[in-house]
This record gives sequence, C-alpha cells and structure tokens, in this order.
Amino acid sequence: MFETTIVEKEKVKMKNPILIEGLPGIGLVGKIAADHMIAELKAKKVADLISPHFPHQVIMQKNGVMRMIKNRLYHVPGKKNDLLILVGDVQAVTSEAQYEVTGKMLDYVEKKGVKLIITLGGYGTGRVHQTPRIFGIVSHKPLVEKYKKYGIIFGESKGSIIGAAGLLLGLGKVRGLQGICIMGETHGGFVDPKSAQGVLESLCKILEIKVDTKKLDQRAKESEQFAKKMEKEALAAKGLSPTEHGKHDLSYIR
Amino acid sequence: MFETTIVEKEKVKMKNPILIEGLPGIGLVGKIAADHMIAELKAKKVADLISPHFPHQVIMQKNGVMRMIKNRLYHVPGKKNDLLILVGDVQAVTSEAQYEVTGKMLDYVEKKGVKLIITLGGYGTGRVHQTPRIFGIVSHKPLVEKYKKYGIIFGESKGSIIGAAGLLLGLGKVRGLQGICIMGETHGGFVDPKSAQGVLESLCKILEIKVDTKKLDQRAKESEQFAKKMEKEALAAKGLSPTEHGKHDLSYIR
Amino acid sequence: MFETTIVEKEKVKMKNPILIEGLPGIGLVGKIAADHMIAELKAKKVADLISPHFPHQVIMQKNGVMRMIKNRLYHVPGKKNDLLILVGDVQAVTSEAQYEVTGKMLDYVEKKGVKLIITLGGYGTGRVHQTPRIFGIVSHKPLVEKYKKYGIIFGESKGSIIGAAGLLLGLGKVRGLQGICIMGETHGGFVDPKSAQGVLESLCKILEIKVDTKKLDQRAKESEQFAKKMEKEALAAKGLSPTEHGKHDLSYIR
Amino acid sequence: MFETTIVEKEKVKMKNPILIEGLPGIGLVGKIAADHMIAELKAKKVADLISPHFPHQVIMQKNGVMRMIKNRLYHVPGKKNDLLILVGDVQAVTSEAQYEVTGKMLDYVEKKGVKLIITLGGYGTGRVHQTPRIFGIVSHKPLVEKYKKYGIIFGESKGSIIGAAGLLLGLGKVRGLQGICIMGETHGGFVDPKSAQGVLESLCKILEIKVDTKKLDQRAKESEQFAKKMEKEALAAKGLSPTEHGKHDLSYIR
Repeated sequence: MFETTIVEKEKVKMKNPILIEGLPGIGLVGKIAADHMIAELKAKKVADLISPHFPHQVIMQKNGVMRMIKNRLYHVPGKKNDLLILVGDVQAVTSEAQYEVTGKMLDYVEKKGVKLIITLGGYGTGRVHQTPRIFGIVSHKPLVEKYKKYGIIFGESKGSIIGAAGLLLGLGKVRGLQGICIMGETHGGFVDPKSAQGVLESLCKILEIKVDTKKLDQRAKESEQFAKKMEKEALAAKGLSPTEHGKHDLSYIR
Repeated sequence: MFETTIVEKEKVKMKNPILIEGLPGIGLVGKIAADHMIAELKAKKVADLISPHFPHQVIMQKNGVMRMIKNRLYHVPGKKNDLLILVGDVQAVTSEAQYEVTGKMLDYVEKKGVKLIITLGGYGTGRVHQTPRIFGIVSHKPLVEKYKKYGIIFGESKGSIIGAAGLLLGLGKVRGLQGICIMGETHGGFVDPKSAQGVLESLCKILEIKVDTKKLDQRAKESEQFAKKMEKEALAAKGLSPTEHGKHDLSYIR
Repeated sequence: MFETTIVEKEKVKMKNPILIEGLPGIGLVGKIAADHMIAELKAKKVADLISPHFPHQVIMQKNGVMRMIKNRLYHVPGKKNDLLILVGDVQAVTSEAQYEVTGKMLDYVEKKGVKLIITLGGYGTGRVHQTPRIFGIVSHKPLVEKYKKYGIIFGESKGSIIGAAGLLLGLGKVRGLQGICIMGETHGGFVDPKSAQGVLESLCKILEIKVDTKKLDQRAKESEQFAKKMEKEALAAKGLSPTEHGKHDLSYIR
Repeated sequence: MFETTIVEKEKVKMKNPILIEGLPGIGLVGKIAADHMIAELKAKKVADLISPHFPHQVIMQKNGVMRMIKNRLYHVPGKKNDLLILVGDVQAVTSEAQYEVTGKMLDYVEKKGVKLIITLGGYGTGRVHQTPRIFGIVSHKPLVEKYKKYGIIFGESKGSIIGAAGLLLGLGKVRGLQGICIMGETHGGFVDPKSAQGVLESLCKILEIKVDTKKLDQRAKESEQFAKKMEKEALAAKGLSPTEHGKHDLSYIR
C-alpha cells in the first residue's frame, strides 16, 4: 500500500523548532496567515508531504511543468526557536486519512526536535466581525495562563476543532508534545484576511517576531483564487459536476 | 497506516476482571447504565482508546483544554471479580472500523485477564414500555441457564445486535471468551433512562453488587446533551449540514 | 488491521477436493443449489470464514445464542474427489473486500489440495424460463470441450460475472487452478429454485453423484426468508432505513 | 490484504525502455492511440496488472473463457529505445487506489530500466476541433525546450491532469524519472479518434518511428463499444442502475 510520504528537500539542523500549521480551513484564516508569514520571512522549503489521500491528479503550472498536490514544510531560523511552517494545497478529507497524514507529519517534526505545535485557524460564527476576537485552545492546562497574557481568550470557544489544526494537538499530546490552536472569529462564508491578520498578530507576540502585514490583503486574494480552483479540482476528481458544488463543498471556504 | 491505539494511563493488576461495555447505542441505554455505574462506583480510568475511525476532530472543553474523541476503560476493584468498564464518545461507523476497534480492545482486555464480557444495550421495539423487559443473548449455550435465573429473558429477541455490543461477544467467542449481551426494551425514538435502570439492575444481580440509581435520571439528561452534540459534530466532520441531520442520523439516539 | 480470518473447526485430510461455491447472488440460484447439496449429502462443517467486510453485527438465534455473520466450508468425502462446499450469509460488497475474502479462501483451499473450482450462479435475463438453459464459463480453453458434453452451453452468455463466482475463477487461475462457473438462466426479480435445480443437475453429472431434489423447493423458501432478513440487516447496519430499501438493494434477491 | 499485483507473462531483457501510457480517459484519446500502436507494431504482451481496486468481476469472452479485468504491458523492441506500452480496461477510481496502482507499476518499470515516461490523454475543451492542438506538460523544466521542437504546445493548458496520466509523472518524478504528458484537444463529450491521431503523430516524431493510421478510426469504434460495456459493468458492480448512469458516469467517455 502506498503510504503518505515526506520527501525531504534539504537536511537542515534546527534549533528548538516550533511547528506552525496553516492548512486550508474555514475562512482560509490559518492558510492566509501562514502563507503570508512564509513570504514575508523568506522561509525556505525543507520538505514536501505527498499522500494517497490527496486528489489523484497533478497540477499544470504556467511554465509547462506539472507538480504534485501536496503539503509543504518551510524553515525560518530564529533566535531562541527556529520555525517550521506547514502549509499546503489541501487537507485529507476522511478521518482515516487525517490521522495518517498527521501521524506522518508528527514523526517527521519530532525527529527535527519540535516540542511545541501552534495551529492556526478560523472560528466560524456566521457573523461579520469588525474586530475579530482571538480564541485559544491548548493541549495542557498550564498553557492557558501562559497564553492568556497575549490577549488570547480561553473558555469561550465551543464545539470541535476539525482537521489538522485539532489532530496535530491531539495526537501530539499523546506523544508528549505541547500545543495551542489560535483561532480568529470569522463569518465562515467567505475568505477573511482580517481574521487572519488578528491570528498572525497574536502569533507574532508569542514568537516575539515582527511580520509586516501590508501585503496580506493582496496575498489573501491570490490564496482565494487558488483554493477555489483546488476545491473545484478535488470535486472533479470525485466525479462531482460543478452543479453539485454547493452540496459537496469541501468547506475550505465558508 | 495509523491504527487504533490504546493509551494506558495506569498499570493496574486486576483480579479476574469482567469487561462491561456501554458505548452509545439505541436509546443510549447501555451508555447511561455504564456511565452511571462509573460515577457511583468511583471507577478509575485506566486507559484511553483512540482511533483513526473516530471523527478527525478534537473537543474544546470549557477550561480551554482540548481532548481527543475516544473510548475509555475504567477500573473497579471487586471481591471475586474486578470490573473493567468500557464507555466512550462514539462507536466506529463502518464494519471494517468496528472490527478493528473491537479487535484492539479484545487484545488489551485479554492481557488483563478478562474471561467474561457483558455488553449492555437497548432492544428497539417502537413502543413505550412502562416496565421494560430485559432480554439476553449469550455466546455459549450453557450460559442461557446460568443467566435465566436473574430474570433475563432468552429466545424472545430477534434480528441482529449491531456494533460493539454484538461484535465483542462474537470476536470474543472466537478467542474463547464467554459473553452475554443484556438488552432493555426501549422505544428507540428517544433516550431511555428507565430501560437503562432495568439493564443496570440485572447487571447488579449478576455481579452481586449494589449501585444507587437515584441520580440516574439526571445523568441521563447530561448524557443526552453530550451525545447529541457528538452526533452533530460527527455529521459536521462528514461535511453534512444540520438540515440533513434526520437523514444521516448516526442512530445514537433513536 | 483486523483481516479476514478462516477459523478451522476440524482438521480433515481430503482426497483431491473440488471447491463448490454457492454464495448469495442473483435469484439465489447458487445458494439454493449449494445449501440443498449440503443438507442432502449430510456435509460436515470444517471451517468458518469471518471478515471485517461483513456487516458489523451478530445474529440472535432462537435458542438465545448469538452467532457471527460468516461464510462456511462443508466437507463431503467422495470416491475420486472429496467436495468442499462454500456457502454463507453474505458476500462482501466492495471490490477491495471481495478480493481480500476470495484471496483468503484460495489460500485455505489450496492448502487442502484443491485444483478445481466450480462456482454456481444465476444468469439474469429479465424473462421467466420454463426450462432454464445452463451456461458455462471456464478458466482455460480446453475445459470448454470437457464440460460441453454435460449439456452446458458455452459462448452464449455475455457481460461479466460479479462477485465470488467470478473472482474465485479469476484469482484461482492466477494461482494455476482450473475452474468453471455454471449459471442457470433466471429472471433476476425473484428467488428461482427451478434454475437452481438445473444448475444442481449439471453439477451432479460432472461430479458423478446423485442428489435428491424433492425438498429443494421447500429449502428455497427458507433460504429466501433468511436472505431477505440478512439483506435488511445489512441495510440497517449501513444506516439505511427500510424505505430506502429498493434503492440500496444489495441484489441478493433480484 | 490483497494488493495490486503484476503477473509477468514473459521475462524480456529490455534496451533503455520508454514507458508509454494509454489507459481509458477523456475522449478515450490516450487509449485509442496506445491500443492502435500495439496492434500496428505487433507489440507482445509481457505482463498483466490485476488490482483489488478494479471491479470485482470477470469478463465472459465469446469463446467461453473468462478473463480478469486488468491493465496490460506490451513490449516493442526498438533501435535506441524499447517501448513498454501500458493499456487496460479501467483505471482505479479513488485517490488511494490510483496511488497504489501507479506505485506498483513504477516499481515494475523501474526494474526494467525505464527512465522516461510518456503519458497520452485528451484535454477537454467542450468544443469540437477540426485540427486539435497538442499540448504538453513535463516533469522537469528543461524538457519543455526538448519537446517544443516537435510542435507540442506548452504553457497553454490549465487545471489538473487526473489519474494515471498525471500520477505516473508525479510519482515518477519523486523517484527521479523524467516524463511528459501529451494531450490532444478534445470536446470531452464523445470518443475522439482525430485527437488520438494527433497525439500519436506527436509521439511518433519523438520516438522516431512510423505507425500507419489507416485503421485508427475502425479501432476507435471497437474501443468505444468495449469501453461503454466496461463502464456499464463497473456501474453495475457498484449497485448503480442504468437509469442513474448519467449521474455516476465514470467519465471514461465524455
């Protein structure tokens, strides 16, 4: 059986790396924040993750060269902590697939020395937020106090965290890793760069780094277009026609 | 491939333990009985079971800490027999998943010395029962006589036992374990603490223990709310909107 | 991962055994013929096959004892060839599952010395047949001539043979085994003991044995009831309500 | 678990073989081109690929002999490069299955010495083309220049390449193999021998061989009939009735 595989592009020694996750999810909040961070910090790609649970197709690029659908890990050197930023085209869509992909990712980052995981995402409310609040959920009780001081709100978010943003914390905890999910309030019906900016600002406070957010809106627009294309392709790969789109929405953009 | 995993919280030596199962099922009959027993007997958690076949999400708790969706094993010391009580948020929903989860569970409890399995559940009739009868189905013929004397009725229940309550007996039997499924008559359309009480009373007779049932109704209400939430989340994780709820009902509460 | 498992009830040394398959299929033609043969020849059960690809439930029997849903192998001693007859409650419903179950079955019967496989089934025509013709399909060209002389018609059946009746021949051939599928014409819309009788008579000629067919009609009726129950249970196990029956028909009875 | 298996019919030593893929896909463009090439070049079959991800049925042939549903590899000796041509009845329909089948195929052809993969397919436009243009997508940037000179157009095709034509390049690249996908413009709503001819002509230029195309139209008609039958059978195997055909179209013929 072909299994999820991490293809390392470059062996890099890392200093106490922190894993930051920003895969496609509600309002594309986490994706926009992480993609923007990679661009602004000039992060360097260190590994690709390919998986039989991603759509069975390759993307035709403008230069005539194909590329696989994948997740990617980028590296940023830091003072106290290096960063390892996880982004990608898609998330796996079934439970079994998410557990496998998350497990393989944790195998890899553990070897790199990761002890802390920060996942980024949106918290859907069905309302428009002028100043989206930033909620947090942690893996271990003592972390609540630690992260409260950055203005992150605890105990007011309800329900579940679906996908990688949740499972990385859950399966990471089983392995003894600590983690926090930072969520920005978002309507859920459209791409939300404002919420992404809020999440990114909280993250920067925690990491004690600065990231310019001038170009964030523009990058969000690019993200939106590509994510919509990906979603359409994923639907086509499942034999669903565009007319059934609404019903079988993969929920990357809500 | 990530497989179903039992995370042992505490190594406990057990005296001829009996496995009691009360996972979510029709009328929540088994779940209510087992959850109540755990609370009243102050049972101690000894292990978590996590599985890629459970929804790929984590639960946000009120204290700001996430937790995995899981099954749990609790321990109660006894005179002749210790008890090992299996409860949880969900059951796996496909055949392949149920067989895997049940197989892993049996691996674990066999190592702990379990020779007898008692599963609890509802027997759906579509009618309301003032005094629900208690039906039994056993793994081996001689057990019929043994359990008849506790007022459990044999040979009147028809059809199949779906999920863990049935498979634990079936796959247990293949390994040489004995078992009985105790089922309380229940309407099937709503949560049924009265049926749970009947099942619990039969179980107590068999185990020669006492369990106060004063708080059973109150606990049933809490169970209902959480189970409904779980069901909704499980649906959301499958990309089903609330409006499709009725159609894709996971049948925890009928 | 829990895999399809053959539980041997009795170690029997066999003399050049021939495998006869009669699992549920169109018109229950193969099932009726094989079940009847087992009863008339007083065949002895030698093994059960259980599988995570069968419904995740156990059957409540009238005597108060549960049993797994399974396939079963029966043994009949013979002059030149012993017979090993494969019957069961269900067939696996997906390709992956059928390949796994068939592969495990072939592993077992090869060890027992099987070199020839005879599968029994119906050939759906949508018409009622007073004297159903008997069609054959073989694994190797030379077998056409060999079996023609028993009145089996070759080259007039078209399309595909779905499920175990086809795959046992196909995967058997890859292992160097020979095989024939004997199909009786049948309407496809109902259980067809007349077609089963035709298939059985052809089989008896090939095997040079006699099987009384007086009680065949009566046994067909029992088969029908149980198969309908099984189908209903299988549907329930997939969360499908009876009202959706027609649409999600598992096609055991057509 | 039964896995995808390559059954080698004949051990042949090959001289720098190039893999040519032409499995069923949009407009049957690749299939027609590859099937025609095999016939005209009198290619010899060297291996079958069978898979639990293909429909669980066997095909009844006119001569009374069944055969498995499969993919096939044919061999053509060449001056500089031998050819290994991959054709078949079906493609796997899920991501997991496509990755497994493609991975097994690459294992085999790598052992045979393949360093270059050429996949053939249609590029759906929804329009009828009098002179279909031929588009290319390559695995590595330098190949764009190399293949441009054969009249293949780069940088004008958009979206994704679904199935084996894309994955063979993508997973091949991970293993260090080079590749190009040659696509002929096609309407997408019907079988297109004209587009297949265009693709075949480009391929012949690259390979510096000649293939007579006189009988291509006739072979396309045969391909169409068989592919339609296969599609119908694949639907039947999934329990879908013909009336649901349009909706669950496997898209071999668009």
